[in-house]
Amino acid sequence: MAKANAFYAQSGGVTAVINASACGVIETARAHKDRIGKIFAGRNGIVGALREELIDTGKESARAIAALRHTPSGAFGSCRYKLKSFEQNRREYERLIDVFRAHNIRYFFYNGGGDSQDTANKVAQIGAALGYPLTAVGVPKTVDNDLPFTDTCPGFGSVAKYVAISTREAALDVASMCETSTKVFILEVMGRHAGWIAAAAGLAQETPGDAPHVILFPEIAFDRERFLAKVKKSVDASGYCVVVVSEGAQYADGTFLADAGGKDAFGHTQLGGVAPAIAAMVKESLGYKYHWAVADYLQRAARHIASATDVEQAYAVGKAAVEFALAGRNAVMPVIVRKRDVPYRWTIDAVPLDKVANVERKMPRSFISRDGFSITAAARRYLAPLVAGEDYPPYRDGLPQYVRLKNELVAKKLPAFEV
Amino acid sequence: MAKANAFYAQSGGVTAVINASACGVIETARAHKDRIGKIFAGRNGIVGALREELIDTGKESARAIAALRHTPSGAFGSCRYKLKSFEQNRREYERLIDVFRAHNIRYFFYNGGGDSQDTANKVAQIGAALGYPLTAVGVPKTVDNDLPFTDTCPGFGSVAKYVAISTREAALDVASMCETSTKVFILEVMGRHAGWIAAAAGLAQETPGDAPHVILFPEIAFDRERFLAKVKKSVDASGYCVVVVSEGAQYADGTFLADAGGKDAFGHTQLGGVAPAIAAMVKESLGYKYHWAVADYLQRAARHIASATDVEQAYAVGKAAVEFALAGRNAVMPVIVRKRDVPYRWTIDAVPLDKVANVERKMPRSFISRDGFSITAAARRYLAPLVAGEDYPPYRDGLPQYVRLKNELVAKKLPAFEV
Repeated sequence: MAKANAFYAQSGGVTAVINASACGVIETARAHKDRIGKIFAGRNGIVGALREELIDTGKESARAIAALRHTPSGAFGSCRYKLKSFEQNRREYERLIDVFRAHNIRYFFYNGGGDSQDTANKVAQIGAALGYPLTAVGVPKTVDNDLPFTDTCPGFGSVAKYVAISTREAALDVASMCETSTKVFILEVMGRHAGWIAAAAGLAQETPGDAPHVILFPEIAFDRERFLAKVKKSVDASGYCVVVVSEGAQYADGTFLADAGGKDAFGHTQLGGVAPAIAAMVKESLGYKYHWAVADYLQRAARHIASATDVEQAYAVGKAAVEFALAGRNAVMPVIVRKRDVPYRWTIDAVPLDKVANVERKMPRSFISRDGFSITAAARRYLAPLVAGEDYPPYRDGLPQYVRLKNELVAKKLPAFEV
Repeated sequence: MAKANAFYAQSGGVTAVINASACGVIETARAHKDRIGKIFAGRNGIVGALREELIDTGKESARAIAALRHTPSGAFGSCRYKLKSFEQNRREYERLIDVFRAHNIRYFFYNGGGDSQDTANKVAQIGAALGYPLTAVGVPKTVDNDLPFTDTCPGFGSVAKYVAISTREAALDVASMCETSTKVFILEVMGRHAGWIAAAAGLAQETPGDAPHVILFPEIAFDRERFLAKVKKSVDASGYCVVVVSEGAQYADGTFLADAGGKDAFGHTQLGGVAPAIAAMVKESLGYKYHWAVADYLQRAARHIASATDVEQAYAVGKAAVEFALAGRNAVMPVIVRKRDVPYRWTIDAVPLDKVANVERKMPRSFISRDGFSITAAARRYLAPLVAGEDYPPYRDGLPQYVRLKNELVAKKLPAFEV
């Protein structure tokens, strides 16, 4: 019998280090040529499996694969595509098994967040149900840091570092300008459902009174008057105020600040973010000159300032996924287990996918200060090691050298399939 | 007679490397203790001189001054405060001379853009007119890159590098996502009057077809239909489109895209940037899913990824300013003279302040492609060396260690003065 082949796919929003996990998967699989034959990657994630668009990673040099470790975003393409339940769309699960069977794929590695882990779990089940032996292992990834059981999710540490550094730098800027110009600076960061990323901005603070003066978390109902009073107090005390606001900041009734009903010139709902909404509030009520920034994709793509800890963990979960698969552990996901805060010590363990799937980890209330505008010592203790260390990519002519893979597809063996 | 003292001030919008110029000024002045006594810095720029708020930089250790080289923004505070003409406000110029006389200040170093060089020039003249011997030397600085005679303005190279890197990184992100999600990414960058910073995004492109697919310059009148056609063409060809837009992008009649009449929920003019305006246009006409980012202060404060060339030049103009002053050259500004593109070679020369003051350097039309949406080989040749090299700050616990000075004020000798 031919050696079994492996399939790897990237799913959901990409990160600065998801390719480091890909690197871990592929390098580890290549190191086990006795057990694993070809390593395919899905073109644009699971969609590539459904369409039988399989990238032959064997066409890539060892050097190109190694360079994935320092290349941000999804080198094989990712997708936002959630498979429905068995009942609703058994056809897609069966198609996956058909494709896997046609290409002798017996190892399935799915690199994503909660939804993806749910998919990986279902694929493991359908393989068993259809009598096709498949080992499915999840690889955790998400800047949202909301997977359970793991100390952190690869991707988060680098966003956290970017946000903390950007906050510290922009704060120095507004501090320089505040006497005669800008007094309030607002930075909008990601985090639709949880304030993990906004919390990371708190690391910028070295001594009390430092920026950020106000963090707006999705977890804390926004109160316009309390917020404005806090801004005024900061400006009175320090001469300026730095606000970091989560895109998910919301009123007590659940309305997002970003959806507060603005209209553009054409009368359409204003599509802008929460930062300009906050800025308008500050201007109107306090009259301060302001600046605002929205980091958006810049924060999760910023491989140039990735956390070395995050890169190492991203690689480690990729490597562990292959090792678990080879050890015959089906339907599990590697997780990071914290052994110690200072110095940070961690190991890798495995949890069953059915425990992970669709469980969202919330930020503990104990991480947010009593007044709701900053982080606590406990949060700092948790966050600090995750941003530690720099892992610079190589540069040429002043720009980072990110790898581009050939991404050659293997010949299809099956009829086309409509996704 | 006591040795003459020196006064240094930072002016206007700060940069990632203006403190490197301060470092150059102070270290060089300290190396000439035989000629220069104390080195004062204006607290919040020229306002500090008017208010007699003089920081005694002698209180700072050699190590703290050296750390200015890797610390962004204005360590002594900057200001947006333009002195009026002699005729309109002779009182302020005379006050400056009073303060300088009271503190035996005979060297005046003013670190800023065009307006500041004009001020430095006027101060030199009023000193002569009032019989107070003063040597005034400008130190160039501006992310806008719009000072004449100099190859580039310290501060610009680092913004250019940040923008080029961010564009390259975000482009990889949207390329990964475009099959099933975001197809258009829009990055708004600084540059109210000229497209120098937007042009730098063009460096992200390695091969034709790469991002950025569209650059919107203030120099090219915005044409909605042509723009949308270009976006569609990019999405059809590559699957996605990256747009970099200058905050100064405008219609043929001079209306800024950012001021296109949006209203917020309260009926006030929409204060948002041009990126969301462009995004709304794309959504409405083409229906593509989009993301947008506004870098704002992040781009000019990003010392973590400063251009080594820029840092070196910023230091060099600070150093040269002191050397020119000691050589008795009054009312001049050091400029960077390019000797060669590849490898980049440059020297420092001096130009008279009266030639610099209020002259704005425009970006040549030859730097913009015929279709107005990208940069030419000439622009690339000009820009490439300015972003070359990395000059990382030191880190502790994952965050850059930027210095905070004591900024102790010397005792006042004069009556208060209303600014």
